[in-house]
Amino acid sequence: MTAIGKLLRPRSVAVIGASADSSRMTGRPVGYLQKHGFTGAIYPVNPRAKEIAGLPCYPDVASLPEAPDAAIILLGADKVEPAVRALAERGTAAAVVLAGGFAESGGEGGSRQQALKQAAGSMRLLGPNTIGLVNLTDRITLSATGALEVGDLPAGRISVVSQSGGILGSLLSRAADRGIGFAKLVATGNEADLDSTDVLEELLDDPAADVIAMYLEGLRRPDRFRTAAQRAAELGKPIVVFKVGRSEAGERSASSHTGALAGADRMFDALFRQLGVIRAQTFSDLLDISAALASGKRAAGKRIAVLTSTGGAGTLLADACGITGFALPEPDAATAGRIAALLGEDEKAGAARNPVDVTLAGVKPEVFRSAIAALLDSPSYDAVVTVVGSSALAQPDLVAGAVTECAARTDKSLLVYVSPHAPRIVELLNRQRVPAFTAPESIATVLEALQRRPVLFAPESAAALSAPANLPVGPLNEAESKALFADFGVPATREFAVVDAAGAAAAAAQLGGKVVLKILSRHVAHKSDVGGVRVGLTAEEIPAACAEMLERLRQAGAPTPEGFLVGELARAEVEMILGFHRDPQLGPAVLLGLGGVTAELFEDSTLRLLPIGRTDAEAMVGELRAAKLLAGYRGAPPCDVPALVDAVLAFARMAGALGERLVEAEINPLFVGQVGQGVRAVDGLAVLQSATPA
Amino acid sequence: MTAIGKLLRPRSVAVIGASADSSRMTGRPVGYLQKHGFTGAIYPVNPRAKEIAGLPCYPDVASLPEAPDAAIILLGADKVEPAVRALAERGTAAAVVLAGGFAESGGEGGSRQQALKQAAGSMRLLGPNTIGLVNLTDRITLSATGALEVGDLPAGRISVVSQSGGILGSLLSRAADRGIGFAKLVATGNEADLDSTDVLEELLDDPAADVIAMYLEGLRRPDRFRTAAQRAAELGKPIVVFKVGRSEAGERSASSHTGALAGADRMFDALFRQLGVIRAQTFSDLLDISAALASGKRAAGKRIAVLTSTGGAGTLLADACGITGFALPEPDAATAGRIAALLGEDEKAGAARNPVDVTLAGVKPEVFRSAIAALLDSPSYDAVVTVVGSSALAQPDLVAGAVTECAARTDKSLLVYVSPHAPRIVELLNRQRVPAFTAPESIATVLEALQRRPVLFAPESAAALSAPANLPVGPLNEAESKALFADFGVPATREFAVVDAAGAAAAAAQLGGKVVLKILSRHVAHKSDVGGVRVGLTAEEIPAACAEMLERLRQAGAPTPEGFLVGELARAEVEMILGFHRDPQLGPAVLLGLGGVTAELFEDSTLRLLPIGRTDAEAMVGELRAAKLLAGYRGAPPCDVPALVDAVLAFARMAGALGERLVEAEINPLFVGQVGQGVRAVDGLAVLQSATPA
Repeated sequence: MTAIGKLLRPRSVAVIGASADSSRMTGRPVGYLQKHGFTGAIYPVNPRAKEIAGLPCYPDVASLPEAPDAAIILLGADKVEPAVRALAERGTAAAVVLAGGFAESGGEGGSRQQALKQAAGSMRLLGPNTIGLVNLTDRITLSATGALEVGDLPAGRISVVSQSGGILGSLLSRAADRGIGFAKLVATGNEADLDSTDVLEELLDDPAADVIAMYLEGLRRPDRFRTAAQRAAELGKPIVVFKVGRSEAGERSASSHTGALAGADRMFDALFRQLGVIRAQTFSDLLDISAALASGKRAAGKRIAVLTSTGGAGTLLADACGITGFALPEPDAATAGRIAALLGEDEKAGAARNPVDVTLAGVKPEVFRSAIAALLDSPSYDAVVTVVGSSALAQPDLVAGAVTECAARTDKSLLVYVSPHAPRIVELLNRQRVPAFTAPESIATVLEALQRRPVLFAPESAAALSAPANLPVGPLNEAESKALFADFGVPATREFAVVDAAGAAAAAAQLGGKVVLKILSRHVAHKSDVGGVRVGLTAEEIPAACAEMLERLRQAGAPTPEGFLVGELARAEVEMILGFHRDPQLGPAVLLGLGGVTAELFEDSTLRLLPIGRTDAEAMVGELRAAKLLAGYRGAPPCDVPALVDAVLAFARMAGALGERLVEAEINPLFVGQVGQGVRAVDGLAVLQSATPA
Repeated sequence: MTAIGKLLRPRSVAVIGASADSSRMTGRPVGYLQKHGFTGAIYPVNPRAKEIAGLPCYPDVASLPEAPDAAIILLGADKVEPAVRALAERGTAAAVVLAGGFAESGGEGGSRQQALKQAAGSMRLLGPNTIGLVNLTDRITLSATGALEVGDLPAGRISVVSQSGGILGSLLSRAADRGIGFAKLVATGNEADLDSTDVLEELLDDPAADVIAMYLEGLRRPDRFRTAAQRAAELGKPIVVFKVGRSEAGERSASSHTGALAGADRMFDALFRQLGVIRAQTFSDLLDISAALASGKRAAGKRIAVLTSTGGAGTLLADACGITGFALPEPDAATAGRIAALLGEDEKAGAARNPVDVTLAGVKPEVFRSAIAALLDSPSYDAVVTVVGSSALAQPDLVAGAVTECAARTDKSLLVYVSPHAPRIVELLNRQRVPAFTAPESIATVLEALQRRPVLFAPESAAALSAPANLPVGPLNEAESKALFADFGVPATREFAVVDAAGAAAAAAQLGGKVVLKILSRHVAHKSDVGGVRVGLTAEEIPAACAEMLERLRQAGAPTPEGFLVGELARAEVEMILGFHRDPQLGPAVLLGLGGVTAELFEDSTLRLLPIGRTDAEAMVGELRAAKLLAGYRGAPPCDVPALVDAVLAFARMAGALGERLVEAEINPLFVGQVGQGVRAVDGLAVLQSATPA
């Protein structure tokens, strides 16, 4: 068994700093271990006590009768290090350190945490600054969370990894109230040693859990997270993440808490999307989505039946589901007939609509059950949502029983919206793995998650291409940048780099017709701002234009340019931007968006972390609002989308081949022509650095 | 007292169709009246019972000892009409009809409802198809909702108007669980007589309520709602509305439920925005926002302090508040000092951040109280949010007491986020009018509502202008349309309407330079599609262009045009669209948006119902993303926004003056020039109909 395995399933536990006073935080863990049914050996360690909770208490680690599999350390920050050293020397596999006052508090806390890690040697550490872990499958609690005060915590098929102990406690107590069970819950705290990805990897192998719910503030090793998430997809175990840091205030608060550097939030969005990780948009979605997925049921599509006995609640659901793109088709004739047969003469009209309204008749459990069964049997629906109204308050067990019976006989998702405050019904249903919710929006959110399919990530091999030899270092000028892009397969407009006005005129003559003239300089970022771009010149107009440009540059105090760039006057159906971005936490990424002024105003762009595959590049195009423009908007001809996808892939390949040498790269605009006309880089820049020694 | 007043506060109530069997729906209302403390006379009416719940039962309405102030009718749909007639004849002020099977069920239900209304004569009706009403201020229940099973329903300062009975029950039971009290709750059901606006008007006069919460599916009389909402703003009583119909499925479901025709949802958004009515985005927001407003406290701005003893929950709040645009500035030195003095040496760092983290020390109620007080006293904050963590579970009363004490001594909003499942604390706090929530997003949402100010609606007088005499009828051609707009103050580009090519050439010569040539026809909607627009022609090129246009029209089978339009070649900084729309339910509105192809793709437009004032027109411009373009985007010169605002007002005035005669009107594009250059209608259309007889 691995050390993490022993931490999750120890046969013996030492509780360092245990107190006999159960009202104190240090008095809780021994009591919780006993109360929740731990069957292994518990060794309280405290030099000032002889016995704690009926167990012999040991003065120090050396006195323990055996090396414990795991330890939980309840001492203050200044006393933790010697205890960790003693446990490691004794051969303990892993220890949980609860105390705060380490890296999260800044100042000396950071070095204190370093010392702690060193003292642990090969012993694994969870924390410091954590509330510990809870294994409900095996009834083992290495934690002081007040949520363990509740006696009857249901075991279930969701495991939790949280970077915050408070969040672990909140999830545990909220889920228990709703009858939602967990397998394992682990709070990683400051992650001096074990981090959220270590725990995720371990929990994926746990046959007791089908779903992993994560609370994240940052990721220390995105590559390993990526690998773990891919394995989760292969195993068919969905990962649901609530990641904070969506706002500046949240990001600042999160980084002050864990010390993990939070990356820009959009990059995390891209990461999760690429890996098929489901991102919960609100904290309550984290539990809701996980509970729905843990039912084991899925929805094959977007056709939903809503069954109600109270019009208003049905309307709320129809509205919430409609907003998120679900359809509520009317029942097919056979299904409507089955339901109408259950209803009185005045009520039959309700059977032909959706929401299906069974009015007062639906208050009778047998009518309710038969109507649910009819909708579950119907080929018209991918999932069924049923409303529990106020009338059910009088007979919660009967109503819940009717629903769970139906759920047991179907593979379709059956969800329940509980309209009044009816905690007993919510708990009864969830305990039978029938997901029950109290917000219409929760239903819509979980339906979206239930009809998603695992994403099997298929990027191109990063080593597919090697970088050209003799690459320059520093900022490239426009011609060099576009030549680099062309080397990797993104063509540029036809153009000539020349050193002087005479060369420019000759180039214009060779191109023929009207041309574009630009200054060529690696030192001028915004050519237009210094009058460095002229469009639609003839060869005759070139010499004067060149002179004028040089004069304006001189006046602006800019360095003398390397020369001029003379290019064909290209025409775009749509102008795009294709860029490279390196996130300090998550690494290199590619950005695709609509180019031009209005596009920036409307922020129409999308991101992917590298490497990517063709599916990713195609999905990027599809996610943009500009997809409509590219498809041929309002009578315009359709654009060469395959060529655009090729360009995205080529750009990504370039980034892969250049690796750390690539500092910046951007094509803006990238002209996209009509179908068959391809794409052309019209302007671009790149910055390279020397290859870092391997 | 009005009839509605008597319905809300009857001294005597007849319960028609009351049953002695308390397990039946018809057995509930008499029991609820007694249980919740009604002190007036209760007259059960049922020919088959002598006594119900210890009260003498009457065989019919005629036998009652007096005319009851109000009645609640529990009979089936087919038996209601005679009972209503008998009550009306007896002189009952108002009656509640619970039965369904009327307009909401379609078919004969509609005529049955008509007959019911007639039978009532001057007696007012609530329903049919309603769950009735509840007056918690005076402990009077005219309702069968199962939510009344709960014995201890707190009275409070929120009144509810709901078009659905199920929603009333849901709100009542959910609020009771959280300790949130109501004054009055009224479900209007099918609104055969009393509608939601009638009830709203009555409830605004009720000194027991400060906030009105509404569940709406549609509005029968938007003008009266507008008047009532304006009065609410004057009274300082906020209205919070949850309106369904945001999706097509929801809208369809809502109209099948109430029979009220739901208008397009964006129009309702516009209506609420204009009136300062707060629109709840989710069903749970309706209760959350109402409860926060009922605290009587407000937030003067967007600077929030978050106080926590558990890092994760503080981060959740910071993130949620940050997303909605709130700032979490660090504490000023004095405040940080006051808090640091409460903390241990290792913890003092937490006092200088926001979220302010008091860690374990914050678990002590006296530290918690002092830290909250310090933040409430600080001039750096407009509102304070405090976290209750898992550690509070052990001492709910002490923790809640500390918070309510602080709240009692401040005018600032103090909100509480309860992180674990801790229903007792939530209830204790809300009962003391300290709003407590279990979702970080709820906190962010209510903060937004707490810092809004009432909107005092100041439209221009609709009768400010009269319509020109001798207006044409039917579709106007472009020249006529633009002349109409110019009459009301929206100038057009300089142009001439001519009948033939010679006239066109002469006009071009007079304009000088390059011009725009268009066909002039009231029958061609899309001129460009038939080659009917040429830009940048000289006077010499005009005759050939005219001939070509006529030939293409002939080939396209279009009617012969009325002539040609020759106009100056205008230049826009920004192109806008200014349109008129008449909503079948809510009436006339004006739309302003960014013009052009990309704009439609990005749907950048905003709406206002007419009439509007200058503030509205200015706000419309400000709401658009295009506001950045108009202000001078990325170095472009700023546009003539005052002229654009004038144009919106002029267009609105035109709509007001034309009234029902205006069928359609649109200017697209409306060119907006640089500051001082004004605006120009470049293209436009209008359709008029004959004035309907008054």
